[in-house]
This record gives sequence, C-alpha cells and structure tokens, in this order.
Amino acid sequence: MLTLYYAPGTCALASLIALEESGLAFEARKISIRDGEQRSPDYLKINPKARVPALVTGRGVLTETPAILAYIAQSAPAAKLAPLDDPFEFARLQSFNNYICSTVHVNHAHRPRGSRWADEPAALEAMKAKVPANMADCFTLIEQTMFEGPWVMGEAYSIADPYLFVMTGWLPSDGVDPIRFEKASDHYARMLQRPAIQRALARDQA
Amino acid sequence: MLTLYYAPGTCALASLIALEESGLAFEARKISIRDGEQRSPDYLKINPKARVPALVTGRGVLTETPAILAYIAQSAPAAKLAPLDDPFEFARLQSFNNYICSTVHVNHAHRPRGSRWADEPAALEAMKAKVPANMADCFTLIEQTMFEGPWVMGEAYSIADPYLFVMTGWLPSDGVDPIRFEKASDHYARMLQRPAIQRALARDQA
Repeated sequence: MLTLYYAPGTCALASLIALEESGLAFEARKISIRDGEQRSPDYLKINPKARVPALVTGRGVLTETPAILAYIAQSAPAAKLAPLDDPFEFARLQSFNNYICSTVHVNHAHRPRGSRWADEPAALEAMKAKVPANMADCFTLIEQTMFEGPWVMGEAYSIADPYLFVMTGWLPSDGVDPIRFEKASDHYARMLQRPAIQRALARDQA
Repeated sequence: MLTLYYAPGTCALASLIALEESGLAFEARKISIRDGEQRSPDYLKINPKARVPALVTGRGVLTETPAILAYIAQSAPAAKLAPLDDPFEFARLQSFNNYICSTVHVNHAHRPRGSRWADEPAALEAMKAKVPANMADCFTLIEQTMFEGPWVMGEAYSIADPYLFVMTGWLPSDGVDPIRFEKASDHYARMLQRPAIQRALARDQA
C-alpha cells in the first residue's frame, strides 16, 4: 500500500493524479501548509524537507515530483504512463518533467515563496513583478518546442500530462491568461474530462 | 555517437563525468557562456532553452541534467551507474538528482543569475546575500538525510555522485567553506581521484 502526503494547491496534485491513473492501491493524506503542518515533528520524520509530495512505500519514502511520477509509472506498467522500454523516449519524458520542476515551478514559486531566496520586502516585490513574464516565457517555450499533442509527449498520455496540468492551473494566479496558450488551454480542458483527474480534484478540493 | 554540448564551470560537468564513467563513445563540444554562444542561432537549434548541457543522440537532443544522467546510465548498463532493475532504488536516486536540480542548483543560481527572477539591482543583492545560508542548509540536509556513504547512494557509485561533486565544487564561490561539510568534502576528495573525473576536468579546464 502506498500513502501519498499532499497539500491542496501544490504540485503534489500531479502525483495524486498519476496515482489515480495508475490503478495502484493508495491512500492520500492531506496536510495543511497554511497551518504549517509540513514542519510538524511527525511530518518531518516522513519528509525532512518539510515539503509535499511525499510517497510512503513499503521500502521507504520517496520525494520530488519527477522521481515519484516515474516510480508510479514503473510500478504500474499496465497503465502505460511512460515509455518504460525505450531509454531515449523515457529521457525525453524526464527532460520535460525536469524542466517543470527546475524552471517552471521555480519561476512560479517566486510569487508565493520569494522569501526562500531573499528577505527584504522590496526584493520579494521585485520577484513577484517578474513572475508573469517568466511563466509566459516558459509556456511559449513549452508550446513551441516541447508539447507534441494531443498529449505532452504525443499520442500517448503520460506522467508529463498531470505535471503540465498543474502548471497551467497556476497561470491565472501568476497573472497570465491561459487563453494566450492555445495548446496548454486545450490540454487543460481535455484533462478535466478524465475520470482520474476528476477523482484527484475531488480529493484535492475536499 | 553522442555529442555533449557543455560549458566550463556549469552543471554540464556532471554529464561530462558520467559520460567518461560510462565507457560510451562521445564527443564533447565546448560553448562559451561568457560570449553568449548559448544564444547563437546555431546553438538555439540544438537547445532552444539556451542552456547547457545538451546531449545530441542519434534520435534527437536531450536536455536537463537528471534526464541526461539517467539516459547515460540506461545506455551503458555495464557501467552500473544506476540501479536500473529496482524501481524503488532508481526512484531514490532520481529523488536525489531532482533535489539538486530543483533546489540546490536553483539556490546557487541566485548568486550569478539572479536577473532571471528580478530586475532591480537591490533585489539581486538581496538574493546574493541569502545564497550562503541557503547552500549551507542544503548541504546540511544532504549530509543528515540523503548521503549514505561512501557514495551518495551507498556502496555503489552512481550518477548522483558527479552531480553532488559539481555542487560541492561551487560552495567556495557561494561563500560556504566546504570543510563545514565533512561527508561532502571527503566525497569531493575521493571523486578527484577517479580517472574519469580527471579526464572530465581536463576537458572542462582545457
């Protein structure tokens, strides 16, 4: 049995969706970032980084979204969530998810979490001011050079799709109208039709 | 034949080391970040992100360090650079490399590349001021909760080792004395003894 620790409104939604798509048995446990539960002694024993997601497996805890997503895909090969038998295609998929975690999510984080990188209020405001342009640049690059269609990696739905879905969902709060990005907007709308995503969103918003 | 595009002093050194360790045939092509070569029309055709590393394969170009490192490990199974047959151990390894790309490298980048996230000179100075503490926090967490020893993942050398090596090598320029981190310092010294790393450094510094 797998247990996913997640928090509403965070990137942990991508892992929650992947678990719903996988068919694997799992339990989801919500923690409240607003109440600082991620820094409670109990949670720090699970994830000393004080972040979500964390996936508790029978062999130990896994953290970091791209690693968790690939683990889910490898643990549920029948769900075909990644090209597991093709190292090049698997690397292309990982490259997309690594771009999300190291660049897109990081750009977004400079709006709500700028205090990770500076203390002065004026610096935090300066960071926030640049978020809309940075997020728009990322989505321009994604649409022009990465998004194959109809799904991120092409014909096959994969663990790249829920991760992009979460980022697209953040655009309005980052001051970017998703309508500017036709492929990402259409992808988002199609994702919302998937039963696994409806189940994940029902948990996330419960 | 693989071709790695790299630039001295960047995280591309991790991929260069992994290629040297792998035994795979490859060519390394240096580009000059200082001269802005990463934004040349020719290089943008290879990597529209205008970053290094980029690994050109017979099937296309791969970017993002963790994806490239896993691809090298999967392409050279005899070199045993990753636990390829154990999804949980592979995920642990990926979790480490994802932490480097999304948190450690990002924290470092706020010193030389703060203009990615803010424009005002005062904001860039505020970011720089926080880099030493952030990098020290990362290495504390790595030593306390991730580094197994003697190598990052335990008894087996892996693609996590060159990535940590590059980060440790950045500590002095980030205002952190590596001596504070006994495990990372010892790891760095042992890494320097490996012939593959000596070959990679000779290329990087040529």
